[in-house]
Amino acid sequence: MTKDTALVIFTPSGKRGEVSVGTPVLTAARQLGVDLDSVCGGRGICSKCQVSPGVGQFSKHGLTVAEDALSDWNAVEARYDEKRGLKEGRRLGCQACIQSDVVIDVPPESQVHKQVVRKAAAIRDIKMDPATRLYYVEVREPDMHEPSGDLQRLREALARDWDIADIDAGPGIFRKLQPALRKGKWAVTIAVWQDHNGGTPILIDVWPGYMDARLYGLAIDLGSTTIAAHLCDLRNGQVLGSAGVMNPQIRFGEDLMSRVSYVMMNPGGDVEMTSTVRAALDKLAAELAEEYNIEPRQIVEAVVVCNPVMHHLLLGIDPVELGQAPFALATSDAINMGAGEIGLTTINEGARAYMLPCIAGHVGADCAAVALSETPYTSEDLVLICDVGTNAEILLGTKDRVLACSSPTGPAFEGAQISSGQRAAPGAIEHIEIDPATKEPRFRVIGSELWSDDPGFPEAIATTGVTGICGSGIIEAVAEMRMAGLLDPSGLIGSAEQTGTSRNIPDGRTHSYVVWDGTTDGGALVTVTQGDIRAIQLAKSALYAGARLLMDELETDVPDRIVLAGAFGAHISPKHAMVLGMIPDCLLDKVTSAGNAAGTGARIALCDISARARIEREVHRIQKVETAIEPRFQEHFVAANAIPHATAEFPELSKVLSLPDVSFNTGGSGDRVRRRRR
Amino acid sequence: MTKDTALVIFTPSGKRGEVSVGTPVLTAARQLGVDLDSVCGGRGICSKCQVSPGVGQFSKHGLTVAEDALSDWNAVEARYDEKRGLKEGRRLGCQACIQSDVVIDVPPESQVHKQVVRKAAAIRDIKMDPATRLYYVEVREPDMHEPSGDLQRLREALARDWDIADIDAGPGIFRKLQPALRKGKWAVTIAVWQDHNGGTPILIDVWPGYMDARLYGLAIDLGSTTIAAHLCDLRNGQVLGSAGVMNPQIRFGEDLMSRVSYVMMNPGGDVEMTSTVRAALDKLAAELAEEYNIEPRQIVEAVVVCNPVMHHLLLGIDPVELGQAPFALATSDAINMGAGEIGLTTINEGARAYMLPCIAGHVGADCAAVALSETPYTSEDLVLICDVGTNAEILLGTKDRVLACSSPTGPAFEGAQISSGQRAAPGAIEHIEIDPATKEPRFRVIGSELWSDDPGFPEAIATTGVTGICGSGIIEAVAEMRMAGLLDPSGLIGSAEQTGTSRNIPDGRTHSYVVWDGTTDGGALVTVTQGDIRAIQLAKSALYAGARLLMDELETDVPDRIVLAGAFGAHISPKHAMVLGMIPDCLLDKVTSAGNAAGTGARIALCDISARARIEREVHRIQKVETAIEPRFQEHFVAANAIPHATAEFPELSKVLSLPDVSFNTGGSGDRVRRRRR
Repeated sequence: MTKDTALVIFTPSGKRGEVSVGTPVLTAARQLGVDLDSVCGGRGICSKCQVSPGVGQFSKHGLTVAEDALSDWNAVEARYDEKRGLKEGRRLGCQACIQSDVVIDVPPESQVHKQVVRKAAAIRDIKMDPATRLYYVEVREPDMHEPSGDLQRLREALARDWDIADIDAGPGIFRKLQPALRKGKWAVTIAVWQDHNGGTPILIDVWPGYMDARLYGLAIDLGSTTIAAHLCDLRNGQVLGSAGVMNPQIRFGEDLMSRVSYVMMNPGGDVEMTSTVRAALDKLAAELAEEYNIEPRQIVEAVVVCNPVMHHLLLGIDPVELGQAPFALATSDAINMGAGEIGLTTINEGARAYMLPCIAGHVGADCAAVALSETPYTSEDLVLICDVGTNAEILLGTKDRVLACSSPTGPAFEGAQISSGQRAAPGAIEHIEIDPATKEPRFRVIGSELWSDDPGFPEAIATTGVTGICGSGIIEAVAEMRMAGLLDPSGLIGSAEQTGTSRNIPDGRTHSYVVWDGTTDGGALVTVTQGDIRAIQLAKSALYAGARLLMDELETDVPDRIVLAGAFGAHISPKHAMVLGMIPDCLLDKVTSAGNAAGTGARIALCDISARARIEREVHRIQKVETAIEPRFQEHFVAANAIPHATAEFPELSKVLSLPDVSFNTGGSGDRVRRRRR
Repeated sequence: MTKDTALVIFTPSGKRGEVSVGTPVLTAARQLGVDLDSVCGGRGICSKCQVSPGVGQFSKHGLTVAEDALSDWNAVEARYDEKRGLKEGRRLGCQACIQSDVVIDVPPESQVHKQVVRKAAAIRDIKMDPATRLYYVEVREPDMHEPSGDLQRLREALARDWDIADIDAGPGIFRKLQPALRKGKWAVTIAVWQDHNGGTPILIDVWPGYMDARLYGLAIDLGSTTIAAHLCDLRNGQVLGSAGVMNPQIRFGEDLMSRVSYVMMNPGGDVEMTSTVRAALDKLAAELAEEYNIEPRQIVEAVVVCNPVMHHLLLGIDPVELGQAPFALATSDAINMGAGEIGLTTINEGARAYMLPCIAGHVGADCAAVALSETPYTSEDLVLICDVGTNAEILLGTKDRVLACSSPTGPAFEGAQISSGQRAAPGAIEHIEIDPATKEPRFRVIGSELWSDDPGFPEAIATTGVTGICGSGIIEAVAEMRMAGLLDPSGLIGSAEQTGTSRNIPDGRTHSYVVWDGTTDGGALVTVTQGDIRAIQLAKSALYAGARLLMDELETDVPDRIVLAGAFGAHISPKHAMVLGMIPDCLLDKVTSAGNAAGTGARIALCDISARARIEREVHRIQKVETAIEPRFQEHFVAANAIPHATAEFPELSKVLSLPDVSFNTGGSGDRVRRRRR
């Protein structure tokens, strides 16, 4: 007699449950909320979902596991094992299916510590003029009677053949030069870094003879919450691949000011944060090299963009000065240094690192990179650029004048501090629509192209489940709730009676909207709570207030165009952003997305040294507006709290959309807007 | 009943013996050949001679030690304990006297691992123009509305007040700058390094406000056998003090070619030698800072001179190319780098290091330093400069033309490979005279000003004893033996019958000359053996052959003057050197000593950057003559074997001295000259 379901117990979590016979282990793990990794989405490629099934008596669990508790080893597993090798006793969780009661161990390396980072490198044409290039040189042989060092004869050849004079070389090169020259029969291929400001060129590396391989660089976007690195071919600018990790400094504080406070409270805490983030960068670099099968030695440059606090922490500078007026940077200019000085030790030992200049104490190299990518300083019309992340970088201007500020939006836009929020990862709701008549939602999750009311959706999400809402999803959810009349302009969620939908459920003294209830299948309950609305209101008010402050300065109410950039800028629909009141009113078709503009700026600086010179020049022309001590910022912030704050301010939006005129305020004290502290 | 003597047993050596009651522990240790350190010569200052006496039953030794086996704690010990602290149970070996049978433990830190290095810094006036200087600057306060980094405002002030533009600064400085500026109320004292070739100045360090302390530099003479470091005040060039250690690479081979061979036989052995020598340098630096009571941070520069093999090994370059024609250097130019790159990590973290240029594969930065010190390139008359060490650096020339070569003299001149030889240390015979009539010797040992036939000599050497002969002593001994007729021109030691002295004793098939017999008191038997004579003959022939080769090139037989330099150059008397045939014939009063010219050259380069530019220019004018593959070098080497090789070649010497015309060759085969292999 066979059961239709089987008991599965996962260790070390201890999570257990009944699943249908034939369920893949990975799917079972998702259903039971077990931390089991997968990057390829169950295609048997990534092998991240490896598990170790147990066989025999498990008296602790009161279970006897049969030898055939899992389906037989299949062709996908066999191919993987042949190509890359599977450790003894390991199965691929996406391939092995549960046949009867079983105990499954998830080894540490299969537990999820990673996420899919949305900071994919935007595709864009970049002029190629990299700092580091390869040169083939034939060097005169040593002559005992006219003694000179091998390096000196190499210099002579380089000046003669390539017109590069007085090249600098450190002990790292001294070591490699002699064997390379001899192995290459007095011909070598060298990598030379050239300073865009006319400084001494540096000999980075040397290979015997003609070396027919490419050089690569890393464009690193070091955010408060996520770190993304793009591996770029320095010959054609092509992005081989990108990788991302959470910024491990998160454990010291979710936002920048929390991290600065951490240092204030824990002297020396900056040292800890510095080593943590450096290690993360180095690991990313090593992973990229391995994943794309290139020698770490081929990676000869890194360009890093980040906000001022990350900038200082990466350089090993105590960031406390950035936490208090006058927000003085230790150094604001662009920085050229050895990559090893910021902990990039697994790449070429001679590799260089370049950090873009900072604009001001709160407006960093990331903002400079956005400027380099979006070139407001060449714009004929008035452009507003919002780089949205845990901190928003905002630029407004034309070729005549560019203003910049930063605004502490907090991590809500990245899905943090949201009850059902999660980082962008498979299973996260990223798009949502709510029918204004039925108040019913339909949505899409990361990892599937189908909407939730499309046929086949349940099957499509079988392996991931619906696990939460990511940053762009929560923005759409709130905007859709407003458009569907589930939310009043003050941000209050109405009750079931007030809105006519049972999806609005009581939640303490306030209400929540149920987007997805997977609890009957052991899945997640995904709701938007009143607290979530408040967090989004705070974040969007901060973003709007920053933009508004810059508009005040230029005495304008409507920019000619708006560019949304940042980690999830590409994923926000202009309409939703405007309904929410995140951004000022503007013709909807004049709101575009620049994707990850900071990352793009880093890539441009990596591939083209003339761009480095350009942004170093331009940052001095960008006028910084300080939000932290400007009373009007607070006024704008408070005034921008409604959704949208004042329809009169949104004539363009009003032309295409009229929002339900509702009010759910019953005078109760169940909810009040918390003020964000800087 | 009291004994006149007491049994003393030293651990861990196990050495034991009877000493007179009342003998200081240090003296007893010396008498019994126990390794117990002392630098201050028993004055109770250095505390190097600390020992731990035991009390009670020592069944292993069959001894019961009384509580009062050592004299009471005295005033010197009490003062030392008060000032610097003595560990519990410790006594100063020079103060505590033995009263009855005792067991005394010599802790590891009191065992001798050091020696008195003769490379004392010569006193000389040096023009002061150091690369690194202090500047006091007042920096504009940060202004939120005109944001710029602290470093940028510092640069601005430095350009304005000191006309130093575009200073470079690394992450190490970024870290220090902000707290220093704030603590100093926007005034700081900075140390700036300036490149003598017009490269970018570098910000080395920063202190809050006005910093009223001095900067120091290290002049390091890194020899094959010994390393000497001189701590110099960068304001006035004064040498605060010097310290020396044995080159720890000796365990890989006594001479350079042995070390190169070691790498050839043990691939990767260079890495080991590099880290060994770097650690020794760093330790010397730390010891000097401690001894002269300065902050390691105040040491901001180091200049290193050394031969090419040491040069490469210090820089981490495999030296094998230097072991085979065409003896190609990896790099020959002068090197500017961070001191940390050669392992100097305890001094200022921003400290710079400078290595003088090499002249050729066998003629290194040490020879360049000798040239910088002795300036043959400005000489009106023809000067021969011999820098004598394990390798000899030889320069010959005038302002019109300078030649250089190196010659592998081997370590005999430094007291190694000599039967009673020892490094220059207290107890070593450094000067010797032999009466031509009685054939009796008189001598002086390091540590005492008295001659051995002066009254009070036995007391003067009571603590050290007579332990052996150092490099300059053996040269004098051999020359004196020749002048006293104990040695014939071929280098044979005569028998007692042939020479009429019982000090010539049979020693195998040859004879030895007894200089000192301390065996009746448990001391050393110091002799000069036939083997010693042969070793000195090889060394002096190599030195002479090198000089001769250069003289051939300039078609001269007699230089106008000779400068003896090197570790013990200052201690060789011109007469003895000439009797030996070490150096060519010359007017005796035209033979002078330059002391440690290489070390002096390092000090000059440390104190005066114009000297760096000068020597970098001059080395290109110095013509290198290669001894290793020149057949005439071998011919000269063989021809120069006699003592002196041919009196006809020494007309000047013959004017002041006629050597006994003896021959002890009886046709036996007991001794033959071994040929040195390169």
